[in-house]
Amino acid sequence: MTAPTERRRGRGRPPGARGTGGARDAILAAARRRFAEDGYGRATVRAVARDAGVDPALVIHYFGSKADLFAAAVDLPVSPSDVVERLTAVPVDRLGEAVVRAALALWGEPGTLDAWVGLVRAAMADEAAAASLRDFVTNAIVEPLVARLDGVGVADGPLRGTLVASQVVGLGVARHIVGLEPLASLGGDGLVAAYAPTLQRYLTGPLTA
Amino acid sequence: MTAPTERRRGRGRPPGARGTGGARDAILAAARRRFAEDGYGRATVRAVARDAGVDPALVIHYFGSKADLFAAAVDLPVSPSDVVERLTAVPVDRLGEAVVRAALALWGEPGTLDAWVGLVRAAMADEAAAASLRDFVTNAIVEPLVARLDGVGVADGPLRGTLVASQVVGLGVARHIVGLEPLASLGGDGLVAAYAPTLQRYLTGPLTA
Repeated sequence: MTAPTERRRGRGRPPGARGTGGARDAILAAARRRFAEDGYGRATVRAVARDAGVDPALVIHYFGSKADLFAAAVDLPVSPSDVVERLTAVPVDRLGEAVVRAALALWGEPGTLDAWVGLVRAAMADEAAAASLRDFVTNAIVEPLVARLDGVGVADGPLRGTLVASQVVGLGVARHIVGLEPLASLGGDGLVAAYAPTLQRYLTGPLTA
Repeated sequence: MTAPTERRRGRGRPPGARGTGGARDAILAAARRRFAEDGYGRATVRAVARDAGVDPALVIHYFGSKADLFAAAVDLPVSPSDVVERLTAVPVDRLGEAVVRAALALWGEPGTLDAWVGLVRAAMADEAAAASLRDFVTNAIVEPLVARLDGVGVADGPLRGTLVASQVVGLGVARHIVGLEPLASLGGDGLVAAYAPTLQRYLTGPLTA
């Protein structure tokens, strides 16, 4: 649908690339097999490294973390570390708006939307893919949010993080998969106005009646 | 997973049933073909009746409306009319809580959850199924909500209805397909406390910053 960008190509899977990319490609191939067979939660960087015939340190050198390795393996053109960085820079009382804007920014980048939609579709069709998506969302998105909330003494972080995830996933599905109008055509400012207060309450507001 | 209830059997597809059920089965078979080929929006009761070799009045007699015919054709054990009835009986300022409770009640009925999950999964995998789900949600859920809001002079009904749908769908996906914990294990009162204020604001609150 969209032409691969330089950035995407760097994280993607160049067919048959060899030479300096050989170890990197072998790691990605091993990671895809491990994540598919073991699921995200049970797959380990150590096992991927062993399968690829390299040192675990080389996997970390190339990809940074298990979450980032997963993002590269499923061809997500945005790394979880980038998301976490965006959310670390804002004050906690603006985090709701920051999450909405981060989601819109990610979906708006070339190639990203297709990759996310593909990942969500796979998760709907297949239990193993659903488990991978669950563990990935938990480790890469929910846990960093929980850490932010812990840092300022907000309780119920895990529940708050999954409430946020339920609205962000629902927004993505409603807009980009089911195509519910007029929501699907609503601009960025309208989406922030509608969803930021919801996410802010999930993150720092009262959760009991 | 769950044994079919009497009610479900009545709406389902008894294999090879004939006799008094012949016309009803022929209508259901024709409806499944029409919804699959034309999508929910373009399929008509008239065309289904013609394909089944019966009068359109007989289709309405058996199934009540196009939305209810669709629910029967995809084997949903709950009719949209039931949902609308539940939401018509409550005051507008309690509608958010009523929508949460209606969704939880539907998901909790025997056989219903499997049917919904199957429908959402089909919609993720296939554009035609996604179009059917979109039109069905719009006609059977969003439009009745919009009519309620119109009746009390609340503007932006269509956007409000789709905002509600985005959170309800996201909650269903997070709990029942992706299985995000601790959200997936949260009890009914906790879910109402978390989500009712969100849906109430989407329905009757301010949507601009």
